Amino acid sequence: MPSVRRVSHEFLERQGLTTVFGNPGSNELPFLTGLPDGFRYVLGLHEGAVVGMADGFAQATGRPVLVNLHAASGSGNAMGALTNAVASRTPLVVVAGQQVRSAIGPEANLASVDAPSLMKPLVGWAAEPAYAGDVPRALAQAVFEAGLQRRPTYLSVPYDDWDAEADANASAVLDRRVHRAAAPGANQARWLVERVTGARRPALVLGGDIDSAGLFDEAVRLAERLGGPVWAAPSQFRLPFPNRHPLFRGVLPAGIAPVSEAFEGHDLVLVLGAPVFRYHEYLPGRYLPEGTRLVQVTGDAPAAARAPMGEALVADPGEVIALLLEALGEPEVPAGAHRPVPEPPSEEGPALHPEQVFAALRDESPEDTAYVVESTSTTGAWWRQMDLRHPGSYYFPAAGGLGFGLPGAVGVAMGMPDRPVVGVIGDGSANYGITALWTAAQHRVPLTVVLLRNGTYGALRWFSGLLGVADAPGLDIPGLDFTRIAEGYGVAARHVGGVEELRAELARPVDGPRLIQVDTALTSPS
Amino acid sequence: MPSVRRVSHEFLERQGLTTVFGNPGSNELPFLTGLPDGFRYVLGLHEGAVVGMADGFAQATGRPVLVNLHAASGSGNAMGALTNAVASRTPLVVVAGQQVRSAIGPEANLASVDAPSLMKPLVGWAAEPAYAGDVPRALAQAVFEAGLQRRPTYLSVPYDDWDAEADANASAVLDRRVHRAAAPGANQARWLVERVTGARRPALVLGGDIDSAGLFDEAVRLAERLGGPVWAAPSQFRLPFPNRHPLFRGVLPAGIAPVSEAFEGHDLVLVLGAPVFRYHEYLPGRYLPEGTRLVQVTGDAPAAARAPMGEALVADPGEVIALLLEALGEPEVPAGAHRPVPEPPSEEGPALHPEQVFAALRDESPEDTAYVVESTSTTGAWWRQMDLRHPGSYYFPAAGGLGFGLPGAVGVAMGMPDRPVVGVIGDGSANYGITALWTAAQHRVPLTVVLLRNGTYGALRWFSGLLGVADAPGLDIPGLDFTRIAEGYGVAARHVGGVEELRAELARPVDGPRLIQVDTALTSPS
Repeated sequence: MPSVRRVSHEFLERQGLTTVFGNPGSNELPFLTGLPDGFRYVLGLHEGAVVGMADGFAQATGRPVLVNLHAASGSGNAMGALTNAVASRTPLVVVAGQQVRSAIGPEANLASVDAPSLMKPLVGWAAEPAYAGDVPRALAQAVFEAGLQRRPTYLSVPYDDWDAEADANASAVLDRRVHRAAAPGANQARWLVERVTGARRPALVLGGDIDSAGLFDEAVRLAERLGGPVWAAPSQFRLPFPNRHPLFRGVLPAGIAPVSEAFEGHDLVLVLGAPVFRYHEYLPGRYLPEGTRLVQVTGDAPAAARAPMGEALVADPGEVIALLLEALGEPEVPAGAHRPVPEPPSEEGPALHPEQVFAALRDESPEDTAYVVESTSTTGAWWRQMDLRHPGSYYFPAAGGLGFGLPGAVGVAMGMPDRPVVGVIGDGSANYGITALWTAAQHRVPLTVVLLRNGTYGALRWFSGLLGVADAPGLDIPGLDFTRIAEGYGVAARHVGGVEELRAELARPVDGPRLIQVDTALTSPS
Repeated sequence: MPSVRRVSHEFLERQGLTTVFGNPGSNELPFLTGLPDGFRYVLGLHEGAVVGMADGFAQATGRPVLVNLHAASGSGNAMGALTNAVASRTPLVVVAGQQVRSAIGPEANLASVDAPSLMKPLVGWAAEPAYAGDVPRALAQAVFEAGLQRRPTYLSVPYDDWDAEADANASAVLDRRVHRAAAPGANQARWLVERVTGARRPALVLGGDIDSAGLFDEAVRLAERLGGPVWAAPSQFRLPFPNRHPLFRGVLPAGIAPVSEAFEGHDLVLVLGAPVFRYHEYLPGRYLPEGTRLVQVTGDAPAAARAPMGEALVADPGEVIALLLEALGEPEVPAGAHRPVPEPPSEEGPALHPEQVFAALRDESPEDTAYVVESTSTTGAWWRQMDLRHPGSYYFPAAGGLGFGLPGAVGVAMGMPDRPVVGVIGDGSANYGITALWTAAQHRVPLTVVLLRNGTYGALRWFSGLLGVADAPGLDIPGLDFTRIAEGYGVAARHVGGVEELRAELARPVDGPRLIQVDTALTSPS
């Protein structure tokens, strides 16, 4: 019989989970030995960065990704980053090392007592097999659950298990495949088509899942046949639609009252691939205007169940779009030209206006550049200046948890080697995932990081104003020089002063990662 | 009626929890407004660093400490660091912001659904009050539970609660005090004294709790009356005994067989203030030699219940030491002189031997210097060279989770402004808590960080050898320059080459924080 390790490695290989993002401890070594040729291990220096990189890589490749973490302390370090992966529905398969079986109960050092419970509140499935022979099957379950739920899963494996002999039946797992059918049945299809074709003034709201599922272009076709306005759902983490398309109205504001206001006059709001809704600011009001009906189509069953209003169909949005395209026939209204970009305001003084930075990015970067953005106080400026027409062009921390940006940018750049990738990172955000710079340097990842430095938690300053809180401490973050930090991690870095210097630097071709630090004026997120 | 916020702030003030370590998000602002004069907010740029600093501060001051974190993403970022606080039995009171009550169920952005469940596997107590009026009482419960259990606790508070009017009864909480009696009763005392005085060759094993509880000097008195050898318990996080005392035999190795071997010939092993035992390496064997009886005295009830051998008394070790001192009478054997330090080996080539670094530290630092150590591959070298005779001289990550070191050093230095503090940090470790350097710079914390750079995860290299794993990826970490990183965070830094340069730099008086990077040869931890 082969070892548990060998069967497990072969299963991972067959499933295509051959890029491992990890940070090892002693418990993990017996899993990491003897990895077959073709496996690639990407080391991160902090588990938050490991998960952020894996999340970006999985989103960019559209595939589940293996993460290897240490027991309680290491897995704990990753839990903030996992909240973003949960919200972006990224199928990360986290395999963690555990102490030897005899050392768990007495809580030896580096044992994770009841390891699944630690992770269960976050992940979709967590387990520690009851004996070594079950490890290959449980690993397959972790992979399949991650795919079915589109949520991270967690498998804790005592490190003495890997050397154990596999069960006689273990190889059965190697041929397993698990898929989920999620096309509407005939009655559901009829109902949905009736809802949509019966609407006089339909509006479309698209979630990040549309881009994750590769439906960006399909969504454009659907919108052009519907002819009504299109929004991105609030608290967006992917761009599901070209942002200067004539039908696009932008990202919905994240408050109950303004969302309702946006829908005024529409008899149907069709929500595809999004929760209803990820509000943030507390701006109470009616969920929907009088006379507006909401229909949500999502592959995320819990998101359908928990929504506070509307009818929901838990289904594959791709199948539903195909169905509606067929039912709606040819477009009535040609789409027309994309909306032009406005002239950015210019700042007096030493700091640039964020719009100046984004205009420079837009002008100097290739059209198919992918952006990983974690600058929360410049969201409005961003959408005013950018012109993104390609699928997979935009990634943002899906749970609003800072620390995805820098690592996510590294992961996206590793996952999309043929596209230029730019990270747009705030000086507050950068600190939550700073060590990802080292991984970028070690792998010579082609990545430009534009570091916006305004010396404060800008989005919090804005929120303080919203709440009328004038005196909260801890909002300013002076004295940070990210060119130094980047160099310390092996990444070439430059501080640029004016907009021309920024444009020249962006236009300069580079090999490997670089960081460009630019001082920006504090603006409001909206 | 005053607001929930005002009663809560007043309660914290009366309990002396006026230093708040935090990293704010939008949900936290309503708690942070209107903090009374005398509160101090210490901002960390990452929640792992926040908890590490708070842990160090709490350990150095011997007092519970308030931590303010953001909801799921922010609290998640802190969970790795919390594993160390759990193992060191540090009473951290974590108050986290939650979305407004109406936004939790529908999972608005930055809501933490079922927030207590996320933290419960780690903390001693976690709750989210069922309505605003219960917040002050629940906050008191969080403080008292942290003290009673000596374990972090977690309170999630919807941010609209802070402005609510307090209940008529709310002020009752202001006068509450909760203590636990833990002295042995007469029968227990008789039994214990009989066990100890009846032993022919007793040995003493001391845990970190001895130093945490301020019993370092008492332990010396007890040992000198017992006259037998003294060990620190395996996987030590505080030094409970002067390490060059003639009775001290060092930190017990963290394996079953070598611990048993150490006890050979002793009829009684008295363990004070430690779990039995925090083994790490899997070196199987008998727990105890034939004829050796083990008695554990600990304030940590779960540690008593889960131990795999011995008799246990859950009691205050301080009360038990007092009892035994009285029963044992005067010392039979005078202690004699402390053991001298050996000459450190010297390295050929550009890197220093870690013992050379530690000898320099010992010679150039004041005798009462406190050290926060997170260099896991140099443990043996450390104990061979150091001479620590004072309580509170040594802090190490208690769960073995990296990321305590740098933040912990900042916290200890803030908590002990009258003692010199040195952080001894490995180049692997430093990355897990690197942002604490910024807090040190902002508060001009007097702290010397000695950064040992060997370019590899040294302890893992050693463990690979132990397991016979030759090919694990991800063990090398080249290309890190911590002088640059420190400067980026505002901390003065210098790379020193030879031992004389190191000694000169250490001897140079400084104001505020500094980092000294020194290249060291890879050694084995033992």
